[in-house]
Amino acid sequence: MFIIGELINGMYKKVAEALLEKDATYIRALAGAQVEVGAQALDVNCGPMSRDIVGDLRWLVENIQKEVDVPLCLDSTKIQAIEEGLKGARVKCIINSSSADKEKLDLYIPLAKKYQASLIVLTMDKKGVPGNKDRRLELAAQIIEAAYAYEFPVQDLYLDPILLPVNVAQNQLFDILESVKDFKSMTTPSVKTVVGLSNISQGSKERSLINRTFLVMAQSYGLDAAILDPLDGELMNSLITADLVLNKTIYCGSYLEAYKKSKIK
Amino acid sequence: MFIIGELINGMYKKVAEALLEKDATYIRALAGAQVEVGAQALDVNCGPMSRDIVGDLRWLVENIQKEVDVPLCLDSTKIQAIEEGLKGARVKCIINSSSADKEKLDLYIPLAKKYQASLIVLTMDKKGVPGNKDRRLELAAQIIEAAYAYEFPVQDLYLDPILLPVNVAQNQLFDILESVKDFKSMTTPSVKTVVGLSNISQGSKERSLINRTFLVMAQSYGLDAAILDPLDGELMNSLITADLVLNKTIYCGSYLEAYKKSKIK
Repeated sequence: MFIIGELINGMYKKVAEALLEKDATYIRALAGAQVEVGAQALDVNCGPMSRDIVGDLRWLVENIQKEVDVPLCLDSTKIQAIEEGLKGARVKCIINSSSADKEKLDLYIPLAKKYQASLIVLTMDKKGVPGNKDRRLELAAQIIEAAYAYEFPVQDLYLDPILLPVNVAQNQLFDILESVKDFKSMTTPSVKTVVGLSNISQGSKERSLINRTFLVMAQSYGLDAAILDPLDGELMNSLITADLVLNKTIYCGSYLEAYKKSKIK
Repeated sequence: MFIIGELINGMYKKVAEALLEKDATYIRALAGAQVEVGAQALDVNCGPMSRDIVGDLRWLVENIQKEVDVPLCLDSTKIQAIEEGLKGARVKCIINSSSADKEKLDLYIPLAKKYQASLIVLTMDKKGVPGNKDRRLELAAQIIEAAYAYEFPVQDLYLDPILLPVNVAQNQLFDILESVKDFKSMTTPSVKTVVGLSNISQGSKERSLINRTFLVMAQSYGLDAAILDPLDGELMNSLITADLVLNKTIYCGSYLEAYKKSKIK
């Protein structure tokens, strides 16, 4: 399971403040803390309050890289900001994200190719978020077709089935699980799959419990990556145990401690 | 998810003592406690120390029924004990269990039919526990064929893929998950599926965490029932949340409390 830490996001008040005050110490500490507990990449999002997304994203990328070496997941709806982040990055990047609309793919796939970045594409388009599995598959097929047309390596393509909140789209969650498995069977080698995990519990009381319950299921359906809060210890314990049950890591009696020790440098 | 409480089992020291001393108060309290937190059926097993399995099982059945009305899962390798339990039961019973050997099925299926009981059949035979998914499916097909031959309703047939401990058979657990889904696709209406959950963590340190991680996965693969410890609160919270995520129960903000309240009479 590829873990993308979600905490460097301007929707969190402290991150927004750090961005405003250019408080690199706070951002670097938040980057380090996530990697120390197991994040293998970090999402970087300026948030809705940023008045200079291009400059802020570049500043975040430059400062995070002073602390950690992991891939950065450049998260913005503004393609100029993403390109600025790509220019400033010396690590592998993941672009987060394109939609399935042809005009978007025609911009984002060449951009990802130019910078040898991975690319997350949401299985949604101008018509909105799919209401069922068939529509998700239809959009996935369009995305894959575009990747082939641009000779973009499918192993660098992350399809995101768009995880919806349980309090508004409870009847879609099983479809989303099955979509993960179906997406992976569409190409050889398989495309990758990713979800923004915390979305499932937006507006719910039992956020951590709902998050880890879905994550474990999704791991068993072949999910490759998740954007999540690596500081949620119970979530991480579930994730590590799911990888163990799925035979992705080798069993030992103290497998939790072994995992944690392997992260501390 | 159909929850079969596992605690009335003579392998637990206190239950063995209660059996020896015919301490009905202890057994009734243990039955009541399991049902109160959500067990919908109770496994009843005299354990390895019983010197009179036939009499002990009958005694357990009679006393448990004085406390609770739920189905009883008569758990013994001795068919005479199971028949004695069936005779003493006024509730629906589940026979736990037959193997896939023809001579066993020829005894157990007619017995289940005679008493209108459900029947758990392990997908193993004299040759032992299957080493892969194909063998599990082969045995499942043999069991289903026998059920059809006896005109036994497949909805009353529980196939058990035999959940093995993660510390000895880590590479089989994903096969077991997939077997659950495959078993259910073999007939219309579907056969039911069940696992003895605690087996997965035999000999492991993180028992509850491993149990609930596998259970949530298995629920997402369509598992119908599990024999488990309903007094493990974290396990029950995971189970309830998995049913919610899988749209088996209706969402509300306080769904955990709602579930718990619904169990208290």
